[in-house]
Amino acid sequence: MTYQPGRHFLQIPGPTNTPLPVLAAIAKPTIDHRGPEFAKLGCEVLSGIRTIFKTGNPVIIYPASGTGAWEAALVNTLSPGDKVLMFETGWFSTLWSRMAKRLGIEAEFIAGDWRSGVDAGAIEARLRDDKEHTIKAVAVVHNETSTGVTSDIAAVRRAIDDAGHPALLLVDTISSLGSIDYRHDEWGADVTVGGSQKGLMLPPGLAFNAVSQKALKAGKGAGFPRSFWDWEEMIAINDKGFFPYTPSTNLLQGLKVAIDMLHEEGLENVFARHDRAAEATRRCVRHWGFEIQCANPAEYSSALTAVRLPEGHSADNLRADILGRSNMSLGNGLGPLADKVFRIGHLGDFHDLMVMGTLSGVEMGLRACGIPHQSGGLDAALRYLSGNAGPAGSA
Amino acid sequence: MTYQPGRHFLQIPGPTNTPLPVLAAIAKPTIDHRGPEFAKLGCEVLSGIRTIFKTGNPVIIYPASGTGAWEAALVNTLSPGDKVLMFETGWFSTLWSRMAKRLGIEAEFIAGDWRSGVDAGAIEARLRDDKEHTIKAVAVVHNETSTGVTSDIAAVRRAIDDAGHPALLLVDTISSLGSIDYRHDEWGADVTVGGSQKGLMLPPGLAFNAVSQKALKAGKGAGFPRSFWDWEEMIAINDKGFFPYTPSTNLLQGLKVAIDMLHEEGLENVFARHDRAAEATRRCVRHWGFEIQCANPAEYSSALTAVRLPEGHSADNLRADILGRSNMSLGNGLGPLADKVFRIGHLGDFHDLMVMGTLSGVEMGLRACGIPHQSGGLDAALRYLSGNAGPAGSA
Amino acid sequence: MTYQPGRHFLQIPGPTNTPLPVLAAIAKPTIDHRGPEFAKLGCEVLSGIRTIFKTGNPVIIYPASGTGAWEAALVNTLSPGDKVLMFETGWFSTLWSRMAKRLGIEAEFIAGDWRSGVDAGAIEARLRDDKEHTIKAVAVVHNETSTGVTSDIAAVRRAIDDAGHPALLLVDTISSLGSIDYRHDEWGADVTVGGSQKGLMLPPGLAFNAVSQKALKAGKGAGFPRSFWDWEEMIAINDKGFFPYTPSTNLLQGLKVAIDMLHEEGLENVFARHDRAAEATRRCVRHWGFEIQCANPAEYSSALTAVRLPEGHSADNLRADILGRSNMSLGNGLGPLADKVFRIGHLGDFHDLMVMGTLSGVEMGLRACGIPHQSGGLDAALRYLSGNAGPAGSA
Amino acid sequence: MTYQPGRHFLQIPGPTNTPLPVLAAIAKPTIDHRGPEFAKLGCEVLSGIRTIFKTGNPVIIYPASGTGAWEAALVNTLSPGDKVLMFETGWFSTLWSRMAKRLGIEAEFIAGDWRSGVDAGAIEARLRDDKEHTIKAVAVVHNETSTGVTSDIAAVRRAIDDAGHPALLLVDTISSLGSIDYRHDEWGADVTVGGSQKGLMLPPGLAFNAVSQKALKAGKGAGFPRSFWDWEEMIAINDKGFFPYTPSTNLLQGLKVAIDMLHEEGLENVFARHDRAAEATRRCVRHWGFEIQCANPAEYSSALTAVRLPEGHSADNLRADILGRSNMSLGNGLGPLADKVFRIGHLGDFHDLMVMGTLSGVEMGLRACGIPHQSGGLDAALRYLSGNAGPAGSA
Repeated sequence: MTYQPGRHFLQIPGPTNTPLPVLAAIAKPTIDHRGPEFAKLGCEVLSGIRTIFKTGNPVIIYPASGTGAWEAALVNTLSPGDKVLMFETGWFSTLWSRMAKRLGIEAEFIAGDWRSGVDAGAIEARLRDDKEHTIKAVAVVHNETSTGVTSDIAAVRRAIDDAGHPALLLVDTISSLGSIDYRHDEWGADVTVGGSQKGLMLPPGLAFNAVSQKALKAGKGAGFPRSFWDWEEMIAINDKGFFPYTPSTNLLQGLKVAIDMLHEEGLENVFARHDRAAEATRRCVRHWGFEIQCANPAEYSSALTAVRLPEGHSADNLRADILGRSNMSLGNGLGPLADKVFRIGHLGDFHDLMVMGTLSGVEMGLRACGIPHQSGGLDAALRYLSGNAGPAGSA
Repeated sequence: MTYQPGRHFLQIPGPTNTPLPVLAAIAKPTIDHRGPEFAKLGCEVLSGIRTIFKTGNPVIIYPASGTGAWEAALVNTLSPGDKVLMFETGWFSTLWSRMAKRLGIEAEFIAGDWRSGVDAGAIEARLRDDKEHTIKAVAVVHNETSTGVTSDIAAVRRAIDDAGHPALLLVDTISSLGSIDYRHDEWGADVTVGGSQKGLMLPPGLAFNAVSQKALKAGKGAGFPRSFWDWEEMIAINDKGFFPYTPSTNLLQGLKVAIDMLHEEGLENVFARHDRAAEATRRCVRHWGFEIQCANPAEYSSALTAVRLPEGHSADNLRADILGRSNMSLGNGLGPLADKVFRIGHLGDFHDLMVMGTLSGVEMGLRACGIPHQSGGLDAALRYLSGNAGPAGSA
Repeated sequence: MTYQPGRHFLQIPGPTNTPLPVLAAIAKPTIDHRGPEFAKLGCEVLSGIRTIFKTGNPVIIYPASGTGAWEAALVNTLSPGDKVLMFETGWFSTLWSRMAKRLGIEAEFIAGDWRSGVDAGAIEARLRDDKEHTIKAVAVVHNETSTGVTSDIAAVRRAIDDAGHPALLLVDTISSLGSIDYRHDEWGADVTVGGSQKGLMLPPGLAFNAVSQKALKAGKGAGFPRSFWDWEEMIAINDKGFFPYTPSTNLLQGLKVAIDMLHEEGLENVFARHDRAAEATRRCVRHWGFEIQCANPAEYSSALTAVRLPEGHSADNLRADILGRSNMSLGNGLGPLADKVFRIGHLGDFHDLMVMGTLSGVEMGLRACGIPHQSGGLDAALRYLSGNAGPAGSA
Repeated sequence: MTYQPGRHFLQIPGPTNTPLPVLAAIAKPTIDHRGPEFAKLGCEVLSGIRTIFKTGNPVIIYPASGTGAWEAALVNTLSPGDKVLMFETGWFSTLWSRMAKRLGIEAEFIAGDWRSGVDAGAIEARLRDDKEHTIKAVAVVHNETSTGVTSDIAAVRRAIDDAGHPALLLVDTISSLGSIDYRHDEWGADVTVGGSQKGLMLPPGLAFNAVSQKALKAGKGAGFPRSFWDWEEMIAINDKGFFPYTPSTNLLQGLKVAIDMLHEEGLENVFARHDRAAEATRRCVRHWGFEIQCANPAEYSSALTAVRLPEGHSADNLRADILGRSNMSLGNGLGPLADKVFRIGHLGDFHDLMVMGTLSGVEMGLRACGIPHQSGGLDAALRYLSGNAGPAGSA
């Protein structure tokens, strides 16, 4: 890499731009994880993180990255050979189902088109079929990071309930938590999976499981051998602010600051800010003349926008050009979307001027790569951000 | 101030956005300013800073902000009652002449229009008149930070020489050094005044005097009482990397990193990057329909652009709106330009996406404040940055 | 906690005092874990960490704390119901055996006295008995953090080989790696378990498995369901500097700096420095009149010293007094040693003056708590550090 | 310099060990020095710094190092040719008198022995002689950093008053402020000179003048040409939290944190902590058998201790050995004390374990350099710190 002046724009859909106060907190000297100063910190973050998941139940914090929280959700609630119903929203739901299979879980995968969210009706139908309740859990992704599609979790809960089915509801919120409204208790999730490096604005390295009482009960009978991921020991000692094994102390120092920042801004304001950045991005993209990967406006993600390039143009070339030219990282297309799609992350510690800088970098890349587009996208975005635009979605 | 997410855009014409590696260097623990580790650092920065001023002569580094370097330039070369010829390019040349007067120097001020640079012809004419060589020095500002006008220093030197006048040439490069090409030796400056907080990308707190042999000789006869600002003691002990009194150790740690960054990018590339940001800014401003304070395209500053608002609109209201709305600071109009002009700093650690973010913030402010303008300025800037624009200045 | 001036002395046996350059590296903005800058970093740390384990084989780096590396070592080499032979050196060997049992492994535990290291002879005898090779692995702790006892790993390897037994050798070096000489390849370990927060001078959050070719082969037949901990996917993608799921990017930035620091000092010098700090500590402790938990001088740990208090005195009271009085954290007694023993960590980024400050803090605590001791311990330590002492161990 | 592990011990008598929260505050991005966020900061530090000087009068903060505050005190109150009475307490009083002379002030210097403080009686006698009040000011050093002698400033004030003399009282507290009790208003100082890099625990780069109403009045008639150092402009604009020229913004961010830390601990506790470190140091030094440069126990400095080595031993060799061996910087002997004396700084962010580490490093150096001394000094220091010692000074 040659030298690049100015701030890097990390506009992948996570990890996100880490705010300096969070980095400063992480860079404070490591403290004794068995001492009184840590106990105070532990209590603060264990209690604070519940307000982000919107739950009164325990949230387990692992010194691991998000993928670990996927595994923890499965092995704490299920037994080898159990059946789980999953829904193919894109790459990450696919990876989660593969993980389940590798662990010996029978993951039934309802096919999707990678352009829309979870079909709650299909879930309900399948569960109604499952008269003997062989399906132990339904596992879905709230915000599919590969496509920019957000699913209606409350609808999935209703589907399960309407089917009169006892399956647990496991939800991945890795790329939505702290960016898009999510309500663990109100929406009836049994395990919610989260990570530190997206809306929480931290580096990767913390993984979360928010649980329900039903999930805790299921956990007692779960047959998976487990130790590192085991909830029980965690919850027991978390009461005093401590952890059963060495926690990621410095990231927890950062987590405290990040939670405080989210509340200082106000969660509702944080969500509105992301909605706004997302809509500005979409208006610009549409003005350029590109298709948005998410087909259904009701399911647009406020965390990222996946953009489809016209046939014959390489999204990866475009991304490489933009990285070298404008010091900005964008997300690549995953799985079948490889090289066809690029993803703009607009989540985390982000504001209007960064939205506009990001879109400018994309347009400069389009020009440089000779990808045909209609100019004027920036103005479309700016008009929206300035509040002079027509109704959302009209461009 | 309420909470503002995302990165602050510090787009005043200095202090500038401080790069994180510079801040990290400043935040290293203070070291013994009489020890061997400091001696090494001292030698490195004293030698490195010469490459920025483009001089083989000594550069004095004061633990002071830029205004101190103005005073040092005067008291090391002149005596109370001496006459200095200055040129009114704007607010900072005015302040420097006021300082000279307060110090008991007879500062003759050639009136200017605050929209153009130093008139070398007027300087020459005045010096030709000064048959008895009562004028001891000519003092001018290279880049007038209040107006965004850059003067031709080589022409001023020629004017002095063509007049056959022995006056010293003192030049303020506080807002140009490290952003706009400057050549202390080649252009024949006798004292060049600099500061840390602009193109050098440091916080304020270091002040510089680059000198010539002629200035050093003049210094020996200079009648001002001086101690803190005295060159001689400095130069004597600087040889070993030390300073006669406690230097600003931590800023010097940052200076070393900043000099290395400038050379890693290449000074010519740094200047070209600033030229480019400036031209993009001007095209946008012109497209909006506003006048640029600098009247003469040959004198446009690559460090900042001062923008004139139409009658009846308050530049200070606009700046306040932008600060609150978009987390961006812009420079205010100074002296007679107060509230009529705002200044966009595009110097320091800055790149295309930040240019576009900055201009977007200004346009959002214009919309919010109801200041009439032609939309599409962002596209004009982007086209230029993308290299698809017509000749510079055509917009 | 009331305000405490000055530097905290973190003298638990890990996490250790984190050097500022390591913290600064961790505090750099998070980068794209799929981009070219990360690929370079990934290759550097994956190659650099091998030099610390002294292996030419792969080292897997997990975004997890050390306990995860215990689990990874077991689930990648064994199947549920397999038998493992372990040796009770203290609390951490006990915890590891408990983990094995929770995972469904039959952990046979050779009883120890918590004051000495692994009895290689006992291992050999047991393996000779195991004619049918039902024991699949021998798992031991190199440096038992609860007692300050270092075991002879090469001897354990010889015991296995002399018994003609095919069992794998799994070794925990969490509190020795980077502080006490360890040689994965030369000593014939099959899996070596490590963590970031001790001799590597990082915060907690990275876990390591160094492997052998034999372990990799065993892994292919291992019957544990696994995904997060699975070696194969890791090793496959590590070739290009990448990871199969989000790594702990910022800790990896710190790891690079930490590895560089260890090599800049020289690993042999690092080990000698720890030996020296340990011997100074023991001389002081003995002079005070206290017993060292490690009964066998040949097995003294250079990473920490566990000190036994006389009957009737509370080690936990002493530690609490020292924390409040002198801003220093010490390690507590674990399991049966609770309140009877305190542990002085002298590992990580540590030098003579910190040794002496640490011992001073302990002696001030002893005085304050009225625990009888012979004064003059500091002089005993200082004489040793100054090289004027008698033979090691003579006090 | 070869690599040195562990924390550097910066035990010169300033700059001092900079606490991490102060460094973190300095490393925050530079802000607009004309904006509302800065105004708040400016008001806080301008008001906060008064509590450190214990004054209700203005304190001027310069973006300069301490030597600048010396010059500012002189040029704001005096005219060229004025007479000032100074007292030779050591190197820094000598430097200040030289500066006065270079500025054209007639500095009358009462000779001292470099082992005791200001002789208030001699001051009074001289002033009584000065019937015509030609002496315009008395200028003394509160804590003479070259000798470790603290003078009684209240006594100097009484001497002036008892002599019925109108001279101003100028006091240098560069190495005492924030470490040793000082009371600008109560003790009747007219100008108090301070710097950032000692008891205030900041890097060098801020200089202070606390003033009295009498000094302000004198300033109006002072004949020195001045601009950068001028009080009037400063005080006028300080009211709103701003400065007449660019202040050292990032150091001011650190100053705010430093002031908060001093108050969180409590100024009286800070002073007591320094008294305690100083007495422990002296007991150790005396036990070793060395003479303390300060001859009068009533004048011992709590900020540093200057130690006289026996004839034939080089203090500079000792210091170099300690720097290489133990990663600790000590202060050198200045002027006539060069190579005969070394100075131990025990001021700033410092606690018992650092005192003991520091003394240990000195003793290791003594041993290595073969400088005869009585061992057991550490125990003497520790006994005192533990509160089991006899009356102070008895050793």
